[in-house]
Amino acid sequence: MSAPSPLTQVRLAVDCMGGDHGPSVTLPACQAFLAAHPEAELILVGRADALARAAAWPRCTTVIATELVEMDDPIEVALRRKKDSSMRVAISQVKADDTGAAAAQACVSAGNTGALMAVSRYLLKTLEGIDRPAIATVMPNERDGYTTVLDLGANVDCTAEHLLQFAVMGSALVAAVEGKENPSVGLLNIGEEAIKGSDTIKRAGELLRAAAASGHMNFHGNVEGNDIFKGTTDIVVCDGFVGNVALKTAEGLASMLSNFVKQEFTRNLFTRLAALAALPVLHRLKARVDHRRYNGAALLGLRGLVFKSHGSADAFAFEQALNRAYDAARNGLLARVHDRILDTLAAMPAVANEDDSKLSDAVRTA
Amino acid sequence: MSAPSPLTQVRLAVDCMGGDHGPSVTLPACQAFLAAHPEAELILVGRADALARAAAWPRCTTVIATELVEMDDPIEVALRRKKDSSMRVAISQVKADDTGAAAAQACVSAGNTGALMAVSRYLLKTLEGIDRPAIATVMPNERDGYTTVLDLGANVDCTAEHLLQFAVMGSALVAAVEGKENPSVGLLNIGEEAIKGSDTIKRAGELLRAAAASGHMNFHGNVEGNDIFKGTTDIVVCDGFVGNVALKTAEGLASMLSNFVKQEFTRNLFTRLAALAALPVLHRLKARVDHRRYNGAALLGLRGLVFKSHGSADAFAFEQALNRAYDAARNGLLARVHDRILDTLAAMPAVANEDDSKLSDAVRTA
Repeated sequence: MSAPSPLTQVRLAVDCMGGDHGPSVTLPACQAFLAAHPEAELILVGRADALARAAAWPRCTTVIATELVEMDDPIEVALRRKKDSSMRVAISQVKADDTGAAAAQACVSAGNTGALMAVSRYLLKTLEGIDRPAIATVMPNERDGYTTVLDLGANVDCTAEHLLQFAVMGSALVAAVEGKENPSVGLLNIGEEAIKGSDTIKRAGELLRAAAASGHMNFHGNVEGNDIFKGTTDIVVCDGFVGNVALKTAEGLASMLSNFVKQEFTRNLFTRLAALAALPVLHRLKARVDHRRYNGAALLGLRGLVFKSHGSADAFAFEQALNRAYDAARNGLLARVHDRILDTLAAMPAVANEDDSKLSDAVRTA
Repeated sequence: MSAPSPLTQVRLAVDCMGGDHGPSVTLPACQAFLAAHPEAELILVGRADALARAAAWPRCTTVIATELVEMDDPIEVALRRKKDSSMRVAISQVKADDTGAAAAQACVSAGNTGALMAVSRYLLKTLEGIDRPAIATVMPNERDGYTTVLDLGANVDCTAEHLLQFAVMGSALVAAVEGKENPSVGLLNIGEEAIKGSDTIKRAGELLRAAAASGHMNFHGNVEGNDIFKGTTDIVVCDGFVGNVALKTAEGLASMLSNFVKQEFTRNLFTRLAALAALPVLHRLKARVDHRRYNGAALLGLRGLVFKSHGSADAFAFEQALNRAYDAARNGLLARVHDRILDTLAAMPAVANEDDSKLSDAVRTA
């Protein structure tokens, strides 16, 4: 596949109220982002008082939204009650009108993941050929690169066809954001020495091999949990339950180890002196595994680009999410997902007729 | 539940040929174990030439087995062809005769996991009330304790009833090995903010709450991947696919971080000096997260105790697996699992009639 040339003019819609810290984090991040990207434009969405200080910023417009989706709001509240929430208004900026044009090319929010997915799905709908949207994030790997993992919690149980769609969407994402036109895909499975995967996983392996045989996928084969950090493949595909557990397990281990390092280096005077001597090395280490650097998960498969920042992101981390959304929009991620999925399905007619009977009730009845 | 008094006389059967290193690791570990446990006895199983040096060891008998299950042997080969393998002969030592007596009270092997489970299941059969055996291991947590996680790969898809049984077996294991009579159980699930778990998980939650209500379980509720390392609960229950991915993901992250630490401290002369200053702290850190210390996964739910060492274990690690098996046998783990599962099922009659139609074909037709 050839790379389309990047867009020169990209506008992002930002939910300035979302996340644990709201405008105190999102606005400084927007300011830094604008300074770093002299051609980018932003639509800042939020309450009038919160956005007042940004009124005169260059390349910015503000759109007022009176409500706020709280981090613990149920999905139903976000969908049905808060119709003027900053999250919803920000997402609506990427919805195309009848001519195909939208106010913004991507939206970024640090709000509640379930609500963001449900409202995005309700407002934007899924792309043709996609049964279910997925959430993709990156994790650092030993090759000093990133491994893109999806799904991370949007879909608790998936069919083989869904896993194939995730693989196609992940490939489009890596192509757009990292410039690798033919990224490798691994199917997350359990060790060879154990009973090898469920029927769904085995069938997903068959579909991925068929997609590879028809030239539409760079399928590596099965991978295991440790391959995420080895960087064995550019992309690791799994259902949302497994992906969520893998991500949270990794976060938990990283947090425990980081606490252990702190405890051991602050144990007594001697260890504190050792920490002083080791400080530059410890700083480099910390920077190398700094999770803020890879903040910004993509909601893929919708008729519009939506990126999710960690709720607890600081301004540096939120700026990275803006960067990822910008790169994705600039490099035509939406069209890439659309084209790749249709090309793949055209080459695999048996897979193309999947119905969407398993759509989440919350979204369907909204 | 009251704790039975420990057995004074325990004999372990050891597959001396299993694992990546065979007798060069297992025999030194046995020697160290015998020295540390003056009342313990061992049955060493393996080829005559390999065991010759141990012939005169005190409190040891040797049982000759002429074959060896290789680490990459398919389950079928281990089950049907190698009927005189050291693994199979070692497992057969814990099989009770008609009077209920067995040559050994637990078996330890570092051989191939799939083969060990299949042969154990074939020779020993499952306990009454258990549909499927499970593999349980421990992971270190921030409270400087261990979290017991099961299942870790024996069962790729589980019903809610299986998850309940895992919770009961895990509780018996922690009670026997760690002396906590009423350990807490968490059900591994995805974040509250996402769509909350599959139907199986929701139903498992209901069963666990019912078991808790009848006084047969200390059920904490849902936990997430990071809770394994926080030590939120003593036990985390999940299906084998998810457990295997969580374990391998944690191993992969730990390995990457350990490599990063090495790389950063050996970058140049200055960082090497810093490493020298920090050496005692780094050593303490390493000891604190040393995975060899918690080697020894339990195969639970069988009519005999089987413990699995990592294939790559060194003598120190293999000795820890012997220790875990010894503690479990000494504290009556087999009877505890048996009693707990029957007590729980008696209190929950609706759950007791699960058939075993989903038994692995490999095992059933063996």
